[in-house]
Amino acid sequence: MAHRDMIIDGDLSSALAAYLPVPYNDRPFVTLTYAQLLDSRIAAQPGTRTVISHQQTKAMTHYIRHHHDAILVGIGTVLADDPKLNCRYYLATSSSSSIRPVVLDPHAKWRYSQSQLRSLVDAQQGLAPLILVDADTEPDTSESHLLQATGGHYIKIPVIGQPLQTVWNTIYKQLWDHHHIRSIMVEGGATVINDLLTLGNYDSLIVTIGPVFLGDKGVVVSPQRAIADLQAVQWWTGIQDSVLMARQSSTTLNKYRLINY
Amino acid sequence: MAHRDMIIDGDLSSALAAYLPVPYNDRPFVTLTYAQLLDSRIAAQPGTRTVISHQQTKAMTHYIRHHHDAILVGIGTVLADDPKLNCRYYLATSSSSSIRPVVLDPHAKWRYSQSQLRSLVDAQQGLAPLILVDADTEPDTSESHLLQATGGHYIKIPVIGQPLQTVWNTIYKQLWDHHHIRSIMVEGGATVINDLLTLGNYDSLIVTIGPVFLGDKGVVVSPQRAIADLQAVQWWTGIQDSVLMARQSSTTLNKYRLINY
Repeated sequence: MAHRDMIIDGDLSSALAAYLPVPYNDRPFVTLTYAQLLDSRIAAQPGTRTVISHQQTKAMTHYIRHHHDAILVGIGTVLADDPKLNCRYYLATSSSSSIRPVVLDPHAKWRYSQSQLRSLVDAQQGLAPLILVDADTEPDTSESHLLQATGGHYIKIPVIGQPLQTVWNTIYKQLWDHHHIRSIMVEGGATVINDLLTLGNYDSLIVTIGPVFLGDKGVVVSPQRAIADLQAVQWWTGIQDSVLMARQSSTTLNKYRLINY
Repeated sequence: MAHRDMIIDGDLSSALAAYLPVPYNDRPFVTLTYAQLLDSRIAAQPGTRTVISHQQTKAMTHYIRHHHDAILVGIGTVLADDPKLNCRYYLATSSSSSIRPVVLDPHAKWRYSQSQLRSLVDAQQGLAPLILVDADTEPDTSESHLLQATGGHYIKIPVIGQPLQTVWNTIYKQLWDHHHIRSIMVEGGATVINDLLTLGNYDSLIVTIGPVFLGDKGVVVSPQRAIADLQAVQWWTGIQDSVLMARQSSTTLNKYRLINY
C-alpha cells in the first residue's frame, strides 16, 4: 500500500503513460521535469528552496521517480535543498528505494556525510548516490570512503572546459555502460534544466506550473534558444497546478542519437 | 452569427464567467490578460510581434473584449504589432466594434494616421482610440485633428516623474469620469503587464500559456515582487494552450479601493 499522501490521480497517471521511459538499445531514456511558477521562476532566490507544488503534483514526482533508474540533480540543488532524492511512492511496500541519486558536482563541494540523503541511506530508505566530479578533482578521502561503504561512488569525467554536449553525452554513457542505468529523471536545478533545454538532449519534458509569481529576484528557467517543436503536447490540471507533458521533437532526437552514439 | 473562427468553447466561456467584469460604483473593473510561453516570454525580441496563441484562445481574447468597455495597451505594443484593437467576436452581427481602444503613449510617439486601427475606424469596424499622453507632451496637430474627426481624443495626464500607482489611478479615474468606461481589459505589453502585476491594481487575471519556449532573448513577463495570493484559481486547457484564470487577492483589492478612491 502506498503512503496515503503519495497516491496519484487516475487521470494523471493515464496522461503520463505516454511520457514515461521506453527501453532504448544504446542510451538511457531521459525525462526532464521541474516545477515552476507563472514567471518561470523555480526558487525565490539563488540557493534557497521554494516549495511550489501541490500535494497532487508532489505525488506525481514520486510516481515518475518510481519509473526511472536514476534521478539526477546539480550541485546547486543539493546545496540549497538537501533533498531526499528517494522514491516515496511505494515506500510502504519495500524496505528501500530503488532509484539511484546522481549528483553533478564537478568540484566535489557536496558533503554527503552531512546530508539528509546519508541518513536515509543509513535507514535503508534510499540508495547511496553516484557523484559526478571533474576528472581533475580529488574528492575528500573520508567522504569517498563513506560513500563507498554505503554503496555509492565518485565518478570522474571531464567536465571543466568541455563542451556541454560532450559532458552530457559522457554522463549518459557512463551511467549506461557502468551503472546499468536505463532511464534518468533530471530534476534540476536551473543550470541543469537550462542546459538540457538548450541542448535538447532529453526525451520527455514534464513541467508543473503553479499559480504564483515569485518575482524578478527568483531563479529562472530560460533556455538560450527558442523551442517551438515540442511533440505530443498534453496538459493536465489539478486542484492548484497545471502540468505540461511533451516529447522532445523527433527530428532533434534523431539528430541527437545519430551524432552522439 | 459570429465569425466561424471566433466561436468560443462552451466549457471555456463557462469557466470565464466568474472572471468577467462586475459593476463597481466608483472605479472601472480591470482585467489583466496576456499570452505567454513556458519561459514567460511574450515576444521573441523587443519590438517584434510573436503570434503565440491557438485559434481557441484567440477566440477567447475577442470574447473577453466583448465584455469590456475599453482595451488598453502600451505604446511598445502598438509600435511592434500595429494591432487592430477591435472586437471581432460579434463582428458579423453589427457594423462596428463597441470596445474603445486606449493607448498609453506618454511621449505621443504613435502615428494613428498611419495605423491599421485608423483603417478599421474608417471602415466602421472599430472605435477611434483614446491616447493617454503626458501633461507636458504636445501631440502633432494633424494627428490630433484626424483623431478628433474620427471620434478619438488625446487625454493629457501627469505621467513622467509620477509614481506608477498615481499614474494608474489617474488613468482609471479619467476613463471612468470622462469617458464612461466601466471595464478595462489590459492586454500588454510587458512594461504595462509587469507594472500592473507589481502594483496589484487589477481585478481579474487571465493568462494563456503556450507549449513553446522563446529563449532568453525574448521579452519577459516578470513582476518585481512575489504574488502568492491569487484567488479562485482555475485552469482551462485547450488543444494547444493552458489558460490560468484568477482574481486578485481580496485583501490587496480592498486596500487598493480604500487607498485609491
